[in-house]
Amino acid sequence: MEHLKPNAANNAPLTPLGFIERAATVYGDSASIIYNQTGFTWAETYRQCVKLASSLNELGIGRRDVVSVLAPNVPALYELHFAVPMAGAVLNTINTRLDARTVSVLLRHCEAKLVFVDCLLKQLAVEALALFPDNHQKPELVLVTDEYESEEANSLGGLFSERYEDLVGRGDAGFAWLMPETESDPIVLNYSSGTTSAPKGVVHSHRGTFIGTVDSLIDWSVPKQPVYLWTLPMFHANGWTHTWGMAAVGGVNVCVRKFDAAAIYHLIEKHDVTHMSGAPVVLNMVSSFTDARPLKRRVNVMTAGAPPPAAVLLRTESLGFVVSHGYGLTETAGHVVTCAWKPEWNQLPASERARLKARQGVRTLGVTKLDVVNPATFASVVRDGATTGEIVLRGGSLMLGYFKDEDATAKAIQNSWLFTGDVGVMHADGYLEIKDRSKDVIISGGENISSVEVESVLYTHQAVSEAAVVARPDGFWGETPCAFLILKTGLAKRPSEKEVMEYCRERMPHYMVPKTVAFMEELPKTSTGKVKKFVLREMARKIGKSKQSRL
Amino acid sequence: MEHLKPNAANNAPLTPLGFIERAATVYGDSASIIYNQTGFTWAETYRQCVKLASSLNELGIGRRDVVSVLAPNVPALYELHFAVPMAGAVLNTINTRLDARTVSVLLRHCEAKLVFVDCLLKQLAVEALALFPDNHQKPELVLVTDEYESEEANSLGGLFSERYEDLVGRGDAGFAWLMPETESDPIVLNYSSGTTSAPKGVVHSHRGTFIGTVDSLIDWSVPKQPVYLWTLPMFHANGWTHTWGMAAVGGVNVCVRKFDAAAIYHLIEKHDVTHMSGAPVVLNMVSSFTDARPLKRRVNVMTAGAPPPAAVLLRTESLGFVVSHGYGLTETAGHVVTCAWKPEWNQLPASERARLKARQGVRTLGVTKLDVVNPATFASVVRDGATTGEIVLRGGSLMLGYFKDEDATAKAIQNSWLFTGDVGVMHADGYLEIKDRSKDVIISGGENISSVEVESVLYTHQAVSEAAVVARPDGFWGETPCAFLILKTGLAKRPSEKEVMEYCRERMPHYMVPKTVAFMEELPKTSTGKVKKFVLREMARKIGKSKQSRL
Repeated sequence: MEHLKPNAANNAPLTPLGFIERAATVYGDSASIIYNQTGFTWAETYRQCVKLASSLNELGIGRRDVVSVLAPNVPALYELHFAVPMAGAVLNTINTRLDARTVSVLLRHCEAKLVFVDCLLKQLAVEALALFPDNHQKPELVLVTDEYESEEANSLGGLFSERYEDLVGRGDAGFAWLMPETESDPIVLNYSSGTTSAPKGVVHSHRGTFIGTVDSLIDWSVPKQPVYLWTLPMFHANGWTHTWGMAAVGGVNVCVRKFDAAAIYHLIEKHDVTHMSGAPVVLNMVSSFTDARPLKRRVNVMTAGAPPPAAVLLRTESLGFVVSHGYGLTETAGHVVTCAWKPEWNQLPASERARLKARQGVRTLGVTKLDVVNPATFASVVRDGATTGEIVLRGGSLMLGYFKDEDATAKAIQNSWLFTGDVGVMHADGYLEIKDRSKDVIISGGENISSVEVESVLYTHQAVSEAAVVARPDGFWGETPCAFLILKTGLAKRPSEKEVMEYCRERMPHYMVPKTVAFMEELPKTSTGKVKKFVLREMARKIGKSKQSRL
Repeated sequence: MEHLKPNAANNAPLTPLGFIERAATVYGDSASIIYNQTGFTWAETYRQCVKLASSLNELGIGRRDVVSVLAPNVPALYELHFAVPMAGAVLNTINTRLDARTVSVLLRHCEAKLVFVDCLLKQLAVEALALFPDNHQKPELVLVTDEYESEEANSLGGLFSERYEDLVGRGDAGFAWLMPETESDPIVLNYSSGTTSAPKGVVHSHRGTFIGTVDSLIDWSVPKQPVYLWTLPMFHANGWTHTWGMAAVGGVNVCVRKFDAAAIYHLIEKHDVTHMSGAPVVLNMVSSFTDARPLKRRVNVMTAGAPPPAAVLLRTESLGFVVSHGYGLTETAGHVVTCAWKPEWNQLPASERARLKARQGVRTLGVTKLDVVNPATFASVVRDGATTGEIVLRGGSLMLGYFKDEDATAKAIQNSWLFTGDVGVMHADGYLEIKDRSKDVIISGGENISSVEVESVLYTHQAVSEAAVVARPDGFWGETPCAFLILKTGLAKRPSEKEVMEYCRERMPHYMVPKTVAFMEELPKTSTGKVKKFVLREMARKIGKSKQSRL
């Protein structure tokens, strides 16, 4: 059968871009996006995207150019997930919670040609550009206006010479938008944390996001025309692929700039929401709301980022939310592991159900292999639920690699595995459970915080001699950063915890600032001088319980 | 971003084989197959498949070897869909309705190393092998026994030296089954019709069947753990990919050797069937059943092969079946076009709904492009629902090509399109409707019949001067073959219609035998001497109405 080779008919590049063209045909008159009192149909959204792609093309944006966005979950951010790659370019969505310095680093690292900026984030963008070296080419800024915000917010001026709707308006609805040349062409560039020292830009291909999107739809059994409430930032790994997924199934995207528990309940009732996603902090929000009330219809919630605490899970489910638990990384397009639920588990006591649901689970259909291995030997660990190893993955929805970082890419992809940096165990029943994160990442309200990066800022404080940052369990945020410090000797004045926090607040995104600071005489260390972080984590846990911040 | 190339971690071959390994983990204790009073779990079915793959490997069956099967929808046929490719080999399922001569031609064409033969098809297999030329290497025959059939049927002897369960029994459950080396490795070889002159063996790749399977699951919104009644032969294009699909979602495969309407209703009620598929003849069967009764729970039925007639559709839906209509070819893995239903159509009168549902529809998500083109210029036809052209496709679920037939492959795949040979129109709303089949195929009860092949047999009759075969509409079968004959002059005795049919019955599979024979003085022809088949089709239609078989 050697004469049968892939050909241009059957080897057409896999890409999620066709989803929206199809949605315009099948769901043309159905709602695509709802934002406050504004609504669009799929025919309109497709048309917007084609016109925008045409204008980007006119501006000279082409294959492999990077277009960045700084925006919350407004309709434009949804549209850009299609329009930018339809111009052949690569979409880079930036976490809006980052500070100007970090945004500046990322924009320079990704060499963005153009940045779309939400009207309430103008200042962040301008400050970020002001931090560019004088000789450095600055990207164009396009203002994403919002009819529900002030005239001042929506005004042009300064670095902003153009509005999003102008670009769309002058676009050609008949533009022959660009399909990828090969399915391994890049489609998005997502930075994996706010690290300023060495930004890790994860690049996904058209193939990877196609596989990730259909995989997530099947795994979550998403029906046709769901109503999806955007409680998950789209800039978080492209909303775990549900940006593209909603076009695939003709869903309704309920966009919302910011929300609290009251808004979530209001929107669920108003729009008959069927699906939503978010870090466990979203479950916390809806279940601890004082005005929480049982839902009239079931709402499916996908949570990930950290295992949902048992109490939160039980409380959320008792209100009528059907919680699914997944696991993914910026390095994966969507979830690659989910806690596939077995019907027989429904017979178990609630606490046991919660324990099982907190496990990360099994590979999704689009993932070829999942294992926990000894990182030195690549050998699988014993499936005993106790022996730890590094979680490794192989499959079509994994990243191509890190942008401009061949070393990091080579380190992450070894022996045909993606090394996740996460430590886990494999249970006897084949279900994965994460035990620790070897990269020292703290996950707070769904945001990844690099402890190394927080430490590097603390070390710049003139009074600090040694610093170690670990995660402290938190009932609301899941985890918060907790800093253990040894101060220099002979200081004229010892800083207070509050002063240290303020020092940090001026130098890093606010969500990264330690919520707890503890001064120590010495840090627990191994014989080779490495800080025993597991001891510090245990200490931080105790702080949590006693509500003290000083040991 | 040029340094970011696909690598062994993210470019792992797409294949449906991993579905069953995963099913054993997630659905290990749930039912996989039910057959009469016998049931299996997914853990058991996976184990059976691994052991069988191991035994095939021991027998020397390896990469790209062809393993054929002659069996109805019994558990073994399901298992072979995984076990054969898990040994690296290519599965060839043969239509059990073919005659020995055709089976013999196919087995020689595909160079099968091994043939699995159902216990009630022993004679067909033995006869097929008897037709092999003396010097031709014959494949091994393995008997697929059935505890519900007679001792004699299950007895070995003659060409059968081994039983299916012996092969499974001595297999190694720890066998490291083979993943494809590349995703374009072949997984199945399906013959597209019973044509004896030039068998067309369609080869699909692991990638193609993976894409086709997940595409069909999403398109039909198949939930987790459906109960699937096998009213569609698995040998028909691998059960439209639902063989692999049921492992993906941990469904229950209700296997059935043969069935009628009473059996369908009985099995639906007994096993809480949620899904089934079949040609429109199956809809006919359930809706025209004298003891037809409204279902207690909705059953989703996917039909394809020919548009369901409006009356049948309405009657079937009124009983509680939810009918979806798809379009695919042997050359595609599963459906590539389906009549995606718009909610607003539910408001239309029943007859209008039926008219809309009879259209083939829009491309599925896994298909890149669908069009209707002028085959000479490749230009798209006007989307007016009237201008005809050839239906062309591009996408990941299309075949690699025809086995040992580079000319046919090159003819089918041109200009990055697969040419389907079907004639259609594109409606203004982007929905495809088939108008005619340029290949002169008659579809009877879901089986494709080549009119050319029936004609070639008629021409061998010593009394026949000219023969032309067309489809005649039939209330039950959809279509049946209708032969128009001109007899030679000066015959001592003119054959009767019955004699012609008997002559055919001895020389072709029974389902291909013309159900109507009409003798003519001359055939309508074009100026260049080509038979005007559209005139004959019109005449055949009138025969249908007047119930006459002689004009």
